[in-house]
Amino acid sequence: MTSGLREPREIGRWDEAVDVVVVGLGAAGAAAALDASRHGAETLVLERASGGGGTSSMSGGVLYLGGGTALQRACGFEDSPEEMYKYLMASCGDGPDEAKMRLYCDGSVQHYEWLLEQGVPFKPVYYHGVSGEPPTDDGLVWSGSERAHPFCDIAVPAPRGHVPQMNDQAGPLLMQKLVAAVEAGSARIAANHRCTALVQEPDGSIIGVVAETFGEERAIRARRGVILTTGGFINNREMIDAHLPLLNRCMVRIGAEGDDGSGIRLGIAAGAATIHMSAGSISLPATQPWGLKRGLLVNAQGQRFINEDAYYGRLGEWALYHQAGRAWLVVDDAIFEQPEYPREVAAVGDTPAELERELGLPEGSLESTMALYNRHAEKGHDPVFDKLPEYVQPLSKPPFGAFDCTTESSIYAAFTLGGLHCDVDGRVLDPEGRPIPGLFGAGRATSGLSVGSYSSGLSLGDGTFFGRRAGRCAASI
Amino acid sequence: MTSGLREPREIGRWDEAVDVVVVGLGAAGAAAALDASRHGAETLVLERASGGGGTSSMSGGVLYLGGGTALQRACGFEDSPEEMYKYLMASCGDGPDEAKMRLYCDGSVQHYEWLLEQGVPFKPVYYHGVSGEPPTDDGLVWSGSERAHPFCDIAVPAPRGHVPQMNDQAGPLLMQKLVAAVEAGSARIAANHRCTALVQEPDGSIIGVVAETFGEERAIRARRGVILTTGGFINNREMIDAHLPLLNRCMVRIGAEGDDGSGIRLGIAAGAATIHMSAGSISLPATQPWGLKRGLLVNAQGQRFINEDAYYGRLGEWALYHQAGRAWLVVDDAIFEQPEYPREVAAVGDTPAELERELGLPEGSLESTMALYNRHAEKGHDPVFDKLPEYVQPLSKPPFGAFDCTTESSIYAAFTLGGLHCDVDGRVLDPEGRPIPGLFGAGRATSGLSVGSYSSGLSLGDGTFFGRRAGRCAASI
Repeated sequence: MTSGLREPREIGRWDEAVDVVVVGLGAAGAAAALDASRHGAETLVLERASGGGGTSSMSGGVLYLGGGTALQRACGFEDSPEEMYKYLMASCGDGPDEAKMRLYCDGSVQHYEWLLEQGVPFKPVYYHGVSGEPPTDDGLVWSGSERAHPFCDIAVPAPRGHVPQMNDQAGPLLMQKLVAAVEAGSARIAANHRCTALVQEPDGSIIGVVAETFGEERAIRARRGVILTTGGFINNREMIDAHLPLLNRCMVRIGAEGDDGSGIRLGIAAGAATIHMSAGSISLPATQPWGLKRGLLVNAQGQRFINEDAYYGRLGEWALYHQAGRAWLVVDDAIFEQPEYPREVAAVGDTPAELERELGLPEGSLESTMALYNRHAEKGHDPVFDKLPEYVQPLSKPPFGAFDCTTESSIYAAFTLGGLHCDVDGRVLDPEGRPIPGLFGAGRATSGLSVGSYSSGLSLGDGTFFGRRAGRCAASI
Repeated sequence: MTSGLREPREIGRWDEAVDVVVVGLGAAGAAAALDASRHGAETLVLERASGGGGTSSMSGGVLYLGGGTALQRACGFEDSPEEMYKYLMASCGDGPDEAKMRLYCDGSVQHYEWLLEQGVPFKPVYYHGVSGEPPTDDGLVWSGSERAHPFCDIAVPAPRGHVPQMNDQAGPLLMQKLVAAVEAGSARIAANHRCTALVQEPDGSIIGVVAETFGEERAIRARRGVILTTGGFINNREMIDAHLPLLNRCMVRIGAEGDDGSGIRLGIAAGAATIHMSAGSISLPATQPWGLKRGLLVNAQGQRFINEDAYYGRLGEWALYHQAGRAWLVVDDAIFEQPEYPREVAAVGDTPAELERELGLPEGSLESTMALYNRHAEKGHDPVFDKLPEYVQPLSKPPFGAFDCTTESSIYAAFTLGGLHCDVDGRVLDPEGRPIPGLFGAGRATSGLSVGSYSSGLSLGDGTFFGRRAGRCAASI
């Protein structure tokens, strides 16, 4: 049999039978288990690690939510599902799934309430400052490019990063609460169980799994469905080579050990289609504190290539995908400040020309870029890349410096966004778009809301949202 | 059963039994059929169209070959497998398959001889001029970026585009000869047969196919193997959306109607892995005649983004993937000539500033780019993008003009490069890298030599080369 698949006749006897098997206990798996069991399904969660959490518990815990959540309102921000939808459709890469996006935006206010019901706390305080992950326990942050060009002209900006109340890194708290909710319910968790195969009938339907635990194999019947929530594949070198080899250059791989694409591969073996496998999230935290957005991000030709006030996720994508990771952030003495993430100063010069020489850039290239920028900045605007006026000021006070933002010496933090092709109810689809009976998926084992460009919180967001839908759908069979 | 798959028990009786079934009669299919039958396998070729040819016969017929072929030597060019290997490894995108590349370069001289043996004629005359497809019947052309930066510093350049002897478009001739060779051999061709399903044993092996012909279904047993040579998926909108949505912006889709990914989808249904599905070849023939390489290709910020003497395939990739298809070729009166492919003049101006305004580019952007370029061009070099000195001269003679190279009004010709994951013998692999017994692939239904950047002739080249290997491997089972 193809690796990762078993025939029913190969299963001597089932060691156990339940309604729904969830594979993986990260945020998506917890959400799937919660909603499956609450909808009457006897549910078993298999987790290969010794405990739940997965990559979700290594994350900042941000959930991208909006449309007018209680938290947004408490912080004094207006939002609507429509504005959220417009922003996400424009900012999530080429051709995101409209149906998923619509459901997500329309259901976001309710989904926030659901998180509260699971015991996840949010402090109704808006954190103004570093985007992404606040160092405080404040609840609402900007976690995307909402206020930057071109998105500020496409949709009314609102902060949508919802952060569980915890100093520094809220992922562990989020997962602690979600796992506790699972444990408090009827679903059972089997840790140290690695799913090694799906059991597939000759007619294609999935009727159970084989799991390995401490060297022993157990066959588990799933009467209604198997839900794959095993995470992405950032830690699988062969898959990265095959789908987004540029990510090999990134210094930081965001992902638990289990993010080796195992669930995606199980699905492929069963005949599933994968989509957007070349999509990745790449963060280049070069413009924190925010004052550094007043700098100029330039490439190996001394050219700018993006508005520097874009979200650091977007900066990373542009620098890696379009500039092969060759980038430097140029500042002058007036805007210089210590970056929040340690970052080498690649060169210093008393003039742009000297800085250019020190960086080894082509003669006249950086000088020309800075002259053009300064000429417009004198008037307070940036017609070339449309950086917001608040971040535009001439760089004219010597000395000049350049922070190293190359992949060789700078943090590029990456994870994968592509995966199994699922419909809005988490049903895994075959290459003709038809569901494989009994097989479901959610989270980064699947292609979600973002298909190429990222805002923080989308993975915990779509993982929990569509994880719940998958759980309900499987339970309803 | 999953769509595209049948169980053996669903097949009442086999309508026919052969050793090897080849699905699709383009260049890869013909090569597979020729070598399978010559190695003793009773071979049947199924072609969904009314005759052979496929996309290969719509192509320019160029085969990328080298290493010192008789044609290269007759034209006075030296080459070696090693230089060819170095060029291809550097120019075919991120992380091409080293083993395939090595075999291909080492076997290229012999493969050229094999083409001669099939009756494919090549006129031993070197065509100096337009890259890609010569308008004459000359046999050897430059069909890549061998002489341009950075490749000229990586490998000794040699022309490697081998063009069958035919004026204008040699693809039909190539296919006429290959199909004639198939017909002259023992393999049989069944036209108007569309393969709709693979027949898969519960253990995963492929033992035959189901084909539809004039509304009737026929089950065909393949005792040794099925070889999928069905082409890429440029004509499948859903697959393009799922893997490389930017290609939707391209005006020209290079592909016969059958390039709808059918064979790739059959493979996926059988549990095959696909790789590099986001890779595409994008040609932007903006610099023909070659004198136009002296122009400046600029983006929506008035910046250059590539050395304009790169191959037009590379120009297209850079313009589409990195500039979202926003590009213009700027010329002055001294280098102006009518482009070979009709192309609109987007704007004219007596000064760079006027041209910039007419194009709607940010104030000062194009002016600044041209000033920097001219400053270096006065000295005959281009330190910013390293265009070869022969194409470098200041653009200073008014009026200035810009040819429209945007996706909206310019030819971007695209086809897909990703597909089934195969080993060097054409065995289709599952997600764990293990062969699916009885299943083979070649040509653009598979991922070949190029995994992201292109030189013309690679698809006919790797399709025939690895098609032959697949044929031999299937025959040997």
